[in-house]
Amino acid sequence: MSSTATRFVRRTPEGEDRERLTCADCGYIAYENPKIVTGSVVVVDGKVMLCRRAIEPRRGFWTIPAGYMELDETVEEAAMREAREEACADLALDGILAVYSIARIGQVQVLFRARLASPGFAPGVESLEVRLFDWNEIPWGDLAFPSVHWVLKAWREVGDGPLGAPRTNPVEDSRGTGGLAEGS
Amino acid sequence: MSSTATRFVRRTPEGEDRERLTCADCGYIAYENPKIVTGSVVVVDGKVMLCRRAIEPRRGFWTIPAGYMELDETVEEAAMREAREEACADLALDGILAVYSIARIGQVQVLFRARLASPGFAPGVESLEVRLFDWNEIPWGDLAFPSVHWVLKAWREVGDGPLGAPRTNPVEDSRGTGGLAEGS
Ligand SMILES: [Zn+2]
Ligand SMILES: [Zn+2]
Repeated sequence: MSSTATRFVRRTPEGEDRERLTCADCGYIAYENPKIVTGSVVVVDGKVMLCRRAIEPRRGFWTIPAGYMELDETVEEAAMREAREEACADLALDGILAVYSIARIGQVQVLFRARLASPGFAPGVESLEVRLFDWNEIPWGDLAFPSVHWVLKAWREVGDGPLGAPRTNPVEDSRGTGGLAEGS
Repeated sequence: MSSTATRFVRRTPEGEDRERLTCADCGYIAYENPKIVTGSVVVVDGKVMLCRRAIEPRRGFWTIPAGYMELDETVEEAAMREAREEACADLALDGILAVYSIARIGQVQVLFRARLASPGFAPGVESLEVRLFDWNEIPWGDLAFPSVHWVLKAWREVGDGPLGAPRTNPVEDSRGTGGLAEGS
């Protein structure tokens, strides 16, 4: 693989109505699409599982097991894979708890409520630590991303009850343009 | 813009565990991420709005107003934009009715139930025709994509009632690997 830096410029391709990132060398059009993050609020005996991030961005801060969806998987498979990778946890998904848009960085988050399908969990390579927290123990000041706040509050509202229509962005950040950088 | 064809090959970049499409000329890595389609089951006086496609794939077949989400918008904004573009319709979204994964083509569909926010609709440039259909009039044999079948059945189940957790893929195609080519 070459590590040659490529020169991308913004041009409007023929027949389109907006600029696209285009390689000045070879004409390749890098269509920039929103990316999908999937993850889970994993509930164990009424407590919620959080992972302390071993990687940037937001190393050392707490998040739910979540990350970018890959090709060749479903949203459900992606959420389960992320929990295996980050928390060595085997999940059973209840259903979709929230769908958030983070327009600032072109991200859509599809977040499930889940339980452990088999007991046990441990930090994966991307986590420094994995722990269960009672609601009153959640380290609100040390959460990695605004959407972790949002989804924990969504879980608090719905509890173990029936999942209604998914929660969406809070009114104070309806487009996902405020707050900290999101990432996974 | 150059129309030079670029030679992409599959290589595993350093530090990664899977092959990525890489330009043999300049080393650019084309990360292929799942793409997000948003759309709406638009209900008007108990009938559902369908658009007959003016573009490939599946030109001449019927679909709901839906298409690829762009950067710099939320899933809700994207669904409303697609209805404006394809049906000249101004929507009020009720909430998310279904989230489907079409793993075969790396697609996630976030589909809303919606009403008209203001009266009137008409074919946009991507539609030959836009019509309202009673349940018994739906042209089942001429629907463009399997997920149009799925979401119309999901709407039939939920009707005007409260939206529960979003419907997901039917058990007979739980990964979205069967059936016709999807697209928008
Ligand atoms: Zn190039
Ligand atoms: Zn190139």
